[in-house]
Amino acid sequence: MIKAGILGVSGYTGQELITWLLKHPKISVTRLFSTSIEGKASQLNSSFFHFNELPDVELYSVDKCNDLDLIFLAVPHTKAMAIVSELRLTNRSIRIVDLSADYRLNSVETYESYYNTQHIDADALNNAVYGLPEKYFDAISSAYLVANPGCYATAMILGLLPLSSSNMINMPIVIDAKSGTSGAGKSLKQSSLFCEVHDTFSAYSTGVHRHTAELIQETGFSNVMFSPHLLPINRGIEAAIYVSSSDYSESQLVDMYDLYYKDHPFVQVLPPTNQPNLNMVKNTNHCVIIPKAIDGWVVVFSLIDNLVKGASGQAIQNANIMFGFDQTTGLI
Amino acid sequence: MIKAGILGVSGYTGQELITWLLKHPKISVTRLFSTSIEGKASQLNSSFFHFNELPDVELYSVDKCNDLDLIFLAVPHTKAMAIVSELRLTNRSIRIVDLSADYRLNSVETYESYYNTQHIDADALNNAVYGLPEKYFDAISSAYLVANPGCYATAMILGLLPLSSSNMINMPIVIDAKSGTSGAGKSLKQSSLFCEVHDTFSAYSTGVHRHTAELIQETGFSNVMFSPHLLPINRGIEAAIYVSSSDYSESQLVDMYDLYYKDHPFVQVLPPTNQPNLNMVKNTNHCVIIPKAIDGWVVVFSLIDNLVKGASGQAIQNANIMFGFDQTTGLI
Amino acid sequence: MIKAGILGVSGYTGQELITWLLKHPKISVTRLFSTSIEGKASQLNSSFFHFNELPDVELYSVDKCNDLDLIFLAVPHTKAMAIVSELRLTNRSIRIVDLSADYRLNSVETYESYYNTQHIDADALNNAVYGLPEKYFDAISSAYLVANPGCYATAMILGLLPLSSSNMINMPIVIDAKSGTSGAGKSLKQSSLFCEVHDTFSAYSTGVHRHTAELIQETGFSNVMFSPHLLPINRGIEAAIYVSSSDYSESQLVDMYDLYYKDHPFVQVLPPTNQPNLNMVKNTNHCVIIPKAIDGWVVVFSLIDNLVKGASGQAIQNANIMFGFDQTTGLI
Amino acid sequence: MIKAGILGVSGYTGQELITWLLKHPKISVTRLFSTSIEGKASQLNSSFFHFNELPDVELYSVDKCNDLDLIFLAVPHTKAMAIVSELRLTNRSIRIVDLSADYRLNSVETYESYYNTQHIDADALNNAVYGLPEKYFDAISSAYLVANPGCYATAMILGLLPLSSSNMINMPIVIDAKSGTSGAGKSLKQSSLFCEVHDTFSAYSTGVHRHTAELIQETGFSNVMFSPHLLPINRGIEAAIYVSSSDYSESQLVDMYDLYYKDHPFVQVLPPTNQPNLNMVKNTNHCVIIPKAIDGWVVVFSLIDNLVKGASGQAIQNANIMFGFDQTTGLI
Repeated sequence: MIKAGILGVSGYTGQELITWLLKHPKISVTRLFSTSIEGKASQLNSSFFHFNELPDVELYSVDKCNDLDLIFLAVPHTKAMAIVSELRLTNRSIRIVDLSADYRLNSVETYESYYNTQHIDADALNNAVYGLPEKYFDAISSAYLVANPGCYATAMILGLLPLSSSNMINMPIVIDAKSGTSGAGKSLKQSSLFCEVHDTFSAYSTGVHRHTAELIQETGFSNVMFSPHLLPINRGIEAAIYVSSSDYSESQLVDMYDLYYKDHPFVQVLPPTNQPNLNMVKNTNHCVIIPKAIDGWVVVFSLIDNLVKGASGQAIQNANIMFGFDQTTGLI
Repeated sequence: MIKAGILGVSGYTGQELITWLLKHPKISVTRLFSTSIEGKASQLNSSFFHFNELPDVELYSVDKCNDLDLIFLAVPHTKAMAIVSELRLTNRSIRIVDLSADYRLNSVETYESYYNTQHIDADALNNAVYGLPEKYFDAISSAYLVANPGCYATAMILGLLPLSSSNMINMPIVIDAKSGTSGAGKSLKQSSLFCEVHDTFSAYSTGVHRHTAELIQETGFSNVMFSPHLLPINRGIEAAIYVSSSDYSESQLVDMYDLYYKDHPFVQVLPPTNQPNLNMVKNTNHCVIIPKAIDGWVVVFSLIDNLVKGASGQAIQNANIMFGFDQTTGLI
Repeated sequence: MIKAGILGVSGYTGQELITWLLKHPKISVTRLFSTSIEGKASQLNSSFFHFNELPDVELYSVDKCNDLDLIFLAVPHTKAMAIVSELRLTNRSIRIVDLSADYRLNSVETYESYYNTQHIDADALNNAVYGLPEKYFDAISSAYLVANPGCYATAMILGLLPLSSSNMINMPIVIDAKSGTSGAGKSLKQSSLFCEVHDTFSAYSTGVHRHTAELIQETGFSNVMFSPHLLPINRGIEAAIYVSSSDYSESQLVDMYDLYYKDHPFVQVLPPTNQPNLNMVKNTNHCVIIPKAIDGWVVVFSLIDNLVKGASGQAIQNANIMFGFDQTTGLI
Repeated sequence: MIKAGILGVSGYTGQELITWLLKHPKISVTRLFSTSIEGKASQLNSSFFHFNELPDVELYSVDKCNDLDLIFLAVPHTKAMAIVSELRLTNRSIRIVDLSADYRLNSVETYESYYNTQHIDADALNNAVYGLPEKYFDAISSAYLVANPGCYATAMILGLLPLSSSNMINMPIVIDAKSGTSGAGKSLKQSSLFCEVHDTFSAYSTGVHRHTAELIQETGFSNVMFSPHLLPINRGIEAAIYVSSSDYSESQLVDMYDLYYKDHPFVQVLPPTNQPNLNMVKNTNHCVIIPKAIDGWVVVFSLIDNLVKGASGQAIQNANIMFGFDQTTGLI
């Protein structure tokens, strides 16, 4: 069994990692780290009560990772950089899956401009692999550090990749995206209170959301209006992608998507007769893509569960690849 | 007091009409008609228990309208046509606000192609006025038949009208819209069940929704991708409108919208710093519009309550205008 | 016009006060006080955008109350005591409606044991009137300080008052109550986050909730199991009251409730054939009571909107009475 | 592999059976029957898209069951009786788990009085075993027909069983229960529409719900007020049980419950410090029980997922026992 640690187990992605890893046949949860709930395993998700094999929650320190083969960093951006650089000095063999944004962008400059903070680990940034298995399977399999993609970024990039070598690459593209509230994390903000989210719907960060950086980097599309919204549900992202184009008939479009993803077990291309519905992906690691060609428009719906394919599930998928397991191990 | 009847009081728009008219100082609810809940006033919305001034619910017949000054038709399309043509023969002075789609489109051909059914009252269709007060105030004031706009159509048209004389008129425009579930009405469909809507989100009628016909007719924009979605909330519509254009600076855009709507009490143009949120309009007759210019894009958010400005509130606004009252009477 | 101030306008009860008072014909909102959103009127509820008659939000100080006739204290317990005692020294004529718990209990000892803190204003405590108009109308009309009841307490006491002179007074009584999440206020607690409340249901403070003190004081029932729950909705309380008793036939029970509340405009006793539903009271100042006698049990459902009859609506009802207005002014 | 059929796959319990059985290592889904969605496998739950091992949906006929070892009947009451009696004539070896109410009650008279319809299969009724493994494990293991308990009944009975030999058996007991809306099934009723359930809360069948019959039969408690409510969530039941009694200290009570359920893998007795929360059981086959002794009251919270332990999960648990598998197979 691979011995894994999780840093940041009090948040939603940390707890989702535990949920899935408890059922994983080849990775065991060996250490749980948290600053906010150290020693309080009881404050882990209430539905873990029937699992008594979980270790206690400890304060993180680098020496506690000596016996680990793998660590998942479920921490905010900027926290991961400091940990990775220290960890690499003491344990050269450990594999790291970082769920923060710190190693997703290829250049220090882009990172600093989008995140308004200094990057302190350019070296590892150069070696990190962007953890989208549908694009970087081989590089992930030999990486020591994988930067798990952003949730919105995963949905948008998977929806656009088959088009990225097309004539559309320079065209204006609208992506109207909607996310469940777990995407905002467990931090205490007024905008995340039940009474502020329930029975309403809102837009935010129109045209300025940070995941735009990953989208541009990974697809090459540059004239994109990415417009995110907050849904009054716990989990799920729908990215609706619109391009004004008559380049493809519907069958050509569908064929192109089918072909692109035929060997990828977690991308389900559904026929255009399907109505996109987040129930299709909730609590699964699947990305459902429904491409349509309608009256001079290409419309692509891309659906994921933001906590699974958009975070913890994809992190495990990456870990599976890093250790040579079938990528679906523990995820189906 | 104007004596008003409501036909179709069992549905959500019928009940919303009652709610607002009970507080209206110049219109009294004189007759309630329904086929499904005839004689069962108790099946009206449970929150009407404290109003004992409501008349009994009757089966509709044309002679029961002889003493009415005004009737609201809250019935499905095709039902309204038959009623209007008969009613006009017996009561030439009654004013009619039709909340169905039967008289919204200017031509029989367009109606028949969008609604797949024959139009049997071309005469009244020619005389009906499209009931968007922000565009047709004068015509409404002298009309005997007003066709109340569709809910999505109201949000989209109000969001686009200030741009309809611009260079954008021939450009590709994306409208990604989201509606609360009351927009689907009270009819028994599996897709309207609580367990099918709650905690999920879905798209439907992508590019083929019937309200597109009203949108094109009233704005002149022709290359529009209208993509509606179903929100797990009761009421509210957000239409997010996207155009790739650098024609306006943000201040020019805001000025243009402010100017266009400065005399319209129910359209609130908010500065671009606001985040659109359906709580801004829920249970009000207001349309909130937030125009933004971002990096080569014009983005306009248009918000309404689908049961108020998108249906029953706008119907009362139209009735106010038809009878020479201030258009806000009973609505603020 | 009565000049009113509101202290604590950033919270849900403060904002609900504004919403109702903006429509009140005899009370004008003259001053808004808040420590957290001082100077930021824009952070008031987003749906206030169309009201420009609101004053700016100021930091509270006692001298800013010199010109006020009335002040509503929408602050946490312990904060109100300090304000009331200071305010009485400088403005003997101001009327105060305190929405906190500080003046609800008749004895300093009871207060201190339930709230685990010292009471510093025994003098005003002795003069304060418990603001349940259905019980203390006359005393409220001449009070300078009214202690607005707790939300759960209002629902429970109104449901029990007609039985408080019966043989049941010493019997064991179960009250299983459920409240919308606005009852927890707007403070930042993990348990109030959307993802913690949505799509689930939980019990808390079983048998130990502080509102038990008001319940016992005002009804005389002493052997009560009060068991509150959190509902995944914004507003509304259902208190289900159960007593094992065959003392009354259903018609006797209904008659007793009808008689007790016949002159009280905000209590609606509905026949036992009705199914209690929070939609009956949402956004109204009504308390709906449905008494049933079933197979040896008396069951009483008592429903209110926790932010209206359970807080701000009742506060305005009390203010109406204090100033000699009809108690329903601005509330229907 | 055991070959299983499911009759009634269009409903929520039918679809839940499929969800769990697709992961079951020893039972394979061999036949799917439905009258409403015959031939339309695509109308099965949208999240089944990635399972292509499912058979087509057929119209039921008894001869199609010849090769089955097991059948689950997920049909309304009265439908099951006709099917069971016919099926037994043609396939004596098939095991049947009936999720309807037809075989739950021990006597024809009780059934007929609670369900207002004739029982046509008294013979099988006498042989059927009440499918609560925590009480009837041995009988289930040798039964050919198991009557799967009602959802509310499961929660209430498990919460009361440890007390059923106590002095409380004749005392008045209140059970205030709350269920997610999937408990109302997928049939088209106005009361199940999203807009009727969302953002509200209601009581129904107070004191007259049919599951009372199972409760009395299986626990012996006779003076019970069972008061069900509808929650605006998809799944989950909380039964809050209240008895006025000082017979047990909290530690005695907890010990009694711990002892009673120590060998039952799907009942989790949690210490009284826990706050009952439906997230503890959602999507699991666990029943969580939290017993408390508070000031002269015994309070027991019993939580299940109504579609799992309250229906399809328990049905599979029963099937596991009937075929000699570990009862947790495929359920953890």
